[in-house]
Amino acid sequence: MAEVKKLDAITARDEDFAKWYTDVVKRAELADYAGVKGCMVIRAAGYALWENIQAELDRRFKETGTENVYLPLLIPESLLQKEKDHVEGFAPEVAWVTHGGNEPLEERMCVRPTSETLFCDFYHNIIHSYRDLPKIYNQWCSVVRWEKTTRPFLRSREFLWQEGHTIHETAEEAQERTIQMLNVYADMCEEFLAIPTIKGQKTDKEKFAGAVSTYTMEAMMHDGKALQSGTSHNFGDGFARAYDIKFAGRDNELTYPHQTSWGLSTRIIGAVIMVHGDDNGLVLPPKLAPTQVVIIPIQQKKAGVMEAAARLKEELSGLRVKVDDSDKSPGFKFAEQEMRGFPLRVEIGPRDIENGTCVVVRRDTGEKLTASTADGKLKPFIEELLKTIHKDMYERAKRHLDESIYEARSYDEFKDTIEKKPGFIKAMWCGETACEEKIKEDTTATSRCIPFEGGEPISDTCVCCGKKARHLVIWGKAY
Amino acid sequence: MAEVKKLDAITARDEDFAKWYTDVVKRAELADYAGVKGCMVIRAAGYALWENIQAELDRRFKETGTENVYLPLLIPESLLQKEKDHVEGFAPEVAWVTHGGNEPLEERMCVRPTSETLFCDFYHNIIHSYRDLPKIYNQWCSVVRWEKTTRPFLRSREFLWQEGHTIHETAEEAQERTIQMLNVYADMCEEFLAIPTIKGQKTDKEKFAGAVSTYTMEAMMHDGKALQSGTSHNFGDGFARAYDIKFAGRDNELTYPHQTSWGLSTRIIGAVIMVHGDDNGLVLPPKLAPTQVVIIPIQQKKAGVMEAAARLKEELSGLRVKVDDSDKSPGFKFAEQEMRGFPLRVEIGPRDIENGTCVVVRRDTGEKLTASTADGKLKPFIEELLKTIHKDMYERAKRHLDESIYEARSYDEFKDTIEKKPGFIKAMWCGETACEEKIKEDTTATSRCIPFEGGEPISDTCVCCGKKARHLVIWGKAY
Repeated sequence: MAEVKKLDAITARDEDFAKWYTDVVKRAELADYAGVKGCMVIRAAGYALWENIQAELDRRFKETGTENVYLPLLIPESLLQKEKDHVEGFAPEVAWVTHGGNEPLEERMCVRPTSETLFCDFYHNIIHSYRDLPKIYNQWCSVVRWEKTTRPFLRSREFLWQEGHTIHETAEEAQERTIQMLNVYADMCEEFLAIPTIKGQKTDKEKFAGAVSTYTMEAMMHDGKALQSGTSHNFGDGFARAYDIKFAGRDNELTYPHQTSWGLSTRIIGAVIMVHGDDNGLVLPPKLAPTQVVIIPIQQKKAGVMEAAARLKEELSGLRVKVDDSDKSPGFKFAEQEMRGFPLRVEIGPRDIENGTCVVVRRDTGEKLTASTADGKLKPFIEELLKTIHKDMYERAKRHLDESIYEARSYDEFKDTIEKKPGFIKAMWCGETACEEKIKEDTTATSRCIPFEGGEPISDTCVCCGKKARHLVIWGKAY
Repeated sequence: MAEVKKLDAITARDEDFAKWYTDVVKRAELADYAGVKGCMVIRAAGYALWENIQAELDRRFKETGTENVYLPLLIPESLLQKEKDHVEGFAPEVAWVTHGGNEPLEERMCVRPTSETLFCDFYHNIIHSYRDLPKIYNQWCSVVRWEKTTRPFLRSREFLWQEGHTIHETAEEAQERTIQMLNVYADMCEEFLAIPTIKGQKTDKEKFAGAVSTYTMEAMMHDGKALQSGTSHNFGDGFARAYDIKFAGRDNELTYPHQTSWGLSTRIIGAVIMVHGDDNGLVLPPKLAPTQVVIIPIQQKKAGVMEAAARLKEELSGLRVKVDDSDKSPGFKFAEQEMRGFPLRVEIGPRDIENGTCVVVRRDTGEKLTASTADGKLKPFIEELLKTIHKDMYERAKRHLDESIYEARSYDEFKDTIEKKPGFIKAMWCGETACEEKIKEDTTATSRCIPFEGGEPISDTCVCCGKKARHLVIWGKAY
């Protein structure tokens, strides 16, 4: 029965994108709704993606001198309240612990929605001299934000993430670190997930609660909507002032240090699904895929077939390879490999053995190739193909992104484009929050970022109010 | 100032073991008290130990077919209450979330103290047929238990751990998995942490709330006290009955599956400190140590010294090596390397360079050796030495354990031994909880386990009540 269900077609991507997404999450067994409202169970196939992303990012973080630490899950209310903007941003969406065991707490605590306040408390204790700086710390953990509407990976009451928190002697060093980590994220997206992003700065309205400036990388999903995929914040010395973190500088004067934070979460799995997936299910970029190659024996009961499959697996050692020797039909196995998004499938049957070949099928294009199974031939062929798949997947996503960015010079053009063409809009902006609010109200689109690249002015006036323009902004509907 | 403080001697281990422990945790910068009562900050040096333990265990888990998943942090009260023994065991020590955002919750939720209930809810949804079995799942996460008295790593309101949760077709398979994972823990302790353990079964009084049987590995700290270092539980089909998990068996009859769970936490870092540490600080087993070798240049401003240090680091590539080129004095650097427990220190100065040698100092014994720095000589020397250190550390700890187990045949002998001799006691027990309670009240010692090995009877009568004995039990005071 389970088999039949899995073979059912999923909703077509262009018919109902939201339903297609939920179907893929469910059928590829990435996540499941939990008995806990608004929370999700990350299933083995989904968690394997997070583990691979974690390993890759952690390696890149460590190359930049990051060390991991772990701070408490709970934040006393008084600690949360020290930075005004921060508490205003987060207090409405935290979960409150009021009882420990059978007794009411003297002071209630929230489950961390993010840990700036705890890191500040920690830094207050350990930073005394310029010799104690910088600290480049990160933690891998879960956070809770009491969201009203939730969707697996994209928005849930609890999610997994990493949060980097650094503290520096100078403003320049903090700014440099803020941009450095945004670049680490964007490079990882491009090189590991085959996802192109647009990097830029958030407007004041969209920046992080308590930050001087927030930088973001925005990815475009297949439906043209944006997914904010990682952010990096420069706090200046605002948090240090609020939490009384001071150090004796080189001149022996007491000085406030400068701080940054940066985070990337399990949302990124949503991006992988929505950038690369198709009507047959998930399509995983080869470096991320927990299984890169599935070998499927054809007529597996015939003499020599299982042995040949095992030999191919052996040949491919070093790659992440599985043989599907279950008693399901080949057709079912093909559909399952497609649903789960494994980049390559190798089919080997009696005729292939006779010919000294096997059939190799690409998940991303469906292309069928014939490969020689002569000693030492298959592995380099597969390795090359995995590289090509990564490159092709990235280029397809980049083309989709580039082709779905429109320009608007008038408000009518803006509204018309946002209504008719899925994608982003480049348009000039005066710098006033009022215009962002009006645009959001009229169109549901929000300012995604002031881009680092491609931000040359396309006109002199704000697309909304017609006053003098200050920035080119990328606008879009977003998850 | 920070330097001077660090060079202060710590409390002697045999003078005040508890204070020595706290000193080491603090000075080796493993953990710090947080502004959150009863919680700790795991600092970079401490978290690096956890990361290494995590990587090693995770690899061993995966070799046994384990997959990682992630279940929610919060458990609705009604879900927690379905298994009677379990809720009675945990409800008094959980933290309750009562508000989300600004609104009271319809049903309060606890922060997970352990996740049996959530896994049951998950298994209820995904297990339908014997084809869906077994599931060998694990998660890495933090849990909260509202402890009254806390100590870093040993007992804190929040700690990090892994919790494995498996579900099987048969009772035999579940029992086999329970013992298999206990063995994974004990092997990791011996082979990675150089800590010998005693494996055995917990008495009914000491078993996990809701388990049919609990197995444990008990380690002996330097002060003779026990630390329960990892446990593995067989639940039989009790949880499946409480949470209505059923599957269609091979005979097509609906059947209850059998479950296990097993956990190991950051407590194990407390064991590493208390088994191996000495009056100069932490002593890390080489496989665990984030830094295995510190190279300390002597007269580092003299020509060629820093270059020679860098060359030695290069020679040792593949090992975890740091050069301490800070402007601190060599004496300070030595003390710091000792406090932080790095297994080897290599000293290289002008005279050594002239002689084509370097000085190698073992952290565990203080032994000074001279090693050749001729091409290709140093690495095999160091590698061999690290192996020897592991072996010696394990053997020292094993000898301490073996020499600190006493036998008691009468209650007077039991009380006299527990008062005068730090260590464990082997004594016979009738099987009644009343005797365990009396022993605990009279001596503070508890039953640690009914050991798998060395459990041959030493008399016919219970050491406490004098009635017929059923088991030999290892008793001890415990953390």
